[in-house]
Amino acid sequence: MPDSSQATSPAEPNRALGTVAIRWQGHCLELLDQRLLPGEERWLALDSAAAVADSIRDMVVRGAPAIGISAAYGVVLAARQAGIDRWREDIAEAMAVLAGSRPTAVNLFWALNRMEQVLDRCASVDQARQQLATAAEQIHAEDLAANLAMADHALSVMTEEAPFSVLTHCNTGALATGGYGTALGVIRRLHETGRLHRVYADETRPWLQGSRLTAWELERDGIPVTLNADGAAAWIMARGDVKWVIVGADRITANGDVANKIGTYSLAVLARHHGIGFMVVAPSSTVDMSLDSGQAIPIEEREGTEVRQVRSEALAPEGVAVFNPVFDVTPATLIDAIVTERGVIERPDCEGMARLFG
Amino acid sequence: MPDSSQATSPAEPNRALGTVAIRWQGHCLELLDQRLLPGEERWLALDSAAAVADSIRDMVVRGAPAIGISAAYGVVLAARQAGIDRWREDIAEAMAVLAGSRPTAVNLFWALNRMEQVLDRCASVDQARQQLATAAEQIHAEDLAANLAMADHALSVMTEEAPFSVLTHCNTGALATGGYGTALGVIRRLHETGRLHRVYADETRPWLQGSRLTAWELERDGIPVTLNADGAAAWIMARGDVKWVIVGADRITANGDVANKIGTYSLAVLARHHGIGFMVVAPSSTVDMSLDSGQAIPIEEREGTEVRQVRSEALAPEGVAVFNPVFDVTPATLIDAIVTERGVIERPDCEGMARLFG
Repeated sequence: MPDSSQATSPAEPNRALGTVAIRWQGHCLELLDQRLLPGEERWLALDSAAAVADSIRDMVVRGAPAIGISAAYGVVLAARQAGIDRWREDIAEAMAVLAGSRPTAVNLFWALNRMEQVLDRCASVDQARQQLATAAEQIHAEDLAANLAMADHALSVMTEEAPFSVLTHCNTGALATGGYGTALGVIRRLHETGRLHRVYADETRPWLQGSRLTAWELERDGIPVTLNADGAAAWIMARGDVKWVIVGADRITANGDVANKIGTYSLAVLARHHGIGFMVVAPSSTVDMSLDSGQAIPIEEREGTEVRQVRSEALAPEGVAVFNPVFDVTPATLIDAIVTERGVIERPDCEGMARLFG
Repeated sequence: MPDSSQATSPAEPNRALGTVAIRWQGHCLELLDQRLLPGEERWLALDSAAAVADSIRDMVVRGAPAIGISAAYGVVLAARQAGIDRWREDIAEAMAVLAGSRPTAVNLFWALNRMEQVLDRCASVDQARQQLATAAEQIHAEDLAANLAMADHALSVMTEEAPFSVLTHCNTGALATGGYGTALGVIRRLHETGRLHRVYADETRPWLQGSRLTAWELERDGIPVTLNADGAAAWIMARGDVKWVIVGADRITANGDVANKIGTYSLAVLARHHGIGFMVVAPSSTVDMSLDSGQAIPIEEREGTEVRQVRSEALAPEGVAVFNPVFDVTPATLIDAIVTERGVIERPDCEGMARLFG
């Protein structure tokens, strides 16, 4: 766990932008410990890149964009602590540690790559400290701006008679991003414009991002939410009120395949069966044009204990085998729209992706 | 909760027939409290129909066949306690209480109906006590026999090259029946005959029958099992090793529609998308030819707390809205085979159902 002091001030809800989970204080990075929600709001104050890497690995912070932003600030902390003689090596080593924290979300590598480019241009440690801080703050602000733009783009393709309901998976809100949210940002905008009837939120086993984070965030922000077990999503779709399934992404490849939280692929198949739209909302930092298809994405598997127990409660025999992939890959053919801040790709394929990201 | 004494002898595993959860002792019905598994094996000794009804409602005992068997023994307990003057009324009242315990599984009503027919033929309370006890024991024994027959029938249509893997949902094993199991009986037989590679067991939120019961039962019986979050089932299917999804049923209507544990319908859609067989295994007592289609089946909804928390652990904001249907309905068009002890109905429809159950 992070070797950090702990702050305890409450997370400030912002009705316009949602409740953010990342606060940059100049000398330290404060993260809302998302493992403790919704029961407890505790902020951790991190003052080193290693502590930020631990927080990403241990899921204090999660959500592809939030991971990228946190990693960028981790580099800034490394620059603050870098030795005068070997500052460039110290920062590079910290970047390697941050890169090893989680394998699937590409935003992490995107942010580190961008920070590395800034570092390469620096001639002194003082310059690095200043320019890396500016770059991290820029990544953070751009993410929020991207989310606001994506909500605009997304609504332009949702032509159904309003109000209607939507279904979402995992947490893609202000908590998972620099603010507002990706998929949840679109849902927020639907609510703001009077087009939303209700959000069905998959609880999202095993980590329960839906119950613990999405339900908490939407309730705080006054957006009508109904929680459901993941297995109930198909039955909810069959009832007819849900017009769109809206999810985020951890990596999008050159053909439009999407890696996202385990259970996303299931929803895409189910949405297609029910004639319901399936929309992926993610900033362009999630796009990885270096990979031809989703088959090339490394899929993180985590400990079986995440399925065998909830906190201290044992749910299964102690030693039973568990298959616990954190992500799955949804093929582009099952996706109706990929929305980024650069615009919408309907029925994504290599050509559509190349048009915006080539 | 049942107003009963508690026995604590361990559940005896039977490698051939599985670990049963129902023991009839002549003067009382002993039920293995399935709410406490896998952490604790506690038997409850019930001596009244009201206690049996409470145990069904509170899910001490669950699984459509096991509910039917337990209700039948509940009638026997009512007969033991019936007043000399109004024994027929006392037993009828107890039957009404038992019938009100859970709405979806038809085996409950089937068993009570069968007991009522026996009761109608009785001329004295002594005769009722004896003949109802015999009838309940017969229902119990017939259920085990049906499970063994269903396993034979099922294997005749599973022509894939062995060994292969299967995926199941909820718990349909010895615990859910009079012994051996329905869907899990088929899986048991696949294992006995060397045709099973591995069972993937959906954890089956919200009640976690897969983690708590199926994993426990299969591990005890030496059958290779891997537990997965419900949302991972589609991703598992995409990997190619799973050739059949095998599930039980709580009610099957005249057109072959199947009500079963929430999440079953989702698996049927996903299996069809992946070209994987979808098999429903249930005794004929699960068939309700009085209903034209699944739309007429009453679907039980339970407390939102089942989704909002696991035991004492809060997983979601306290007051958040929850949609918690216990069952869903899978249309016959998505089912490749319905297996009962009377035989197999492939690609079920009204004609196929009428052929075996008309």
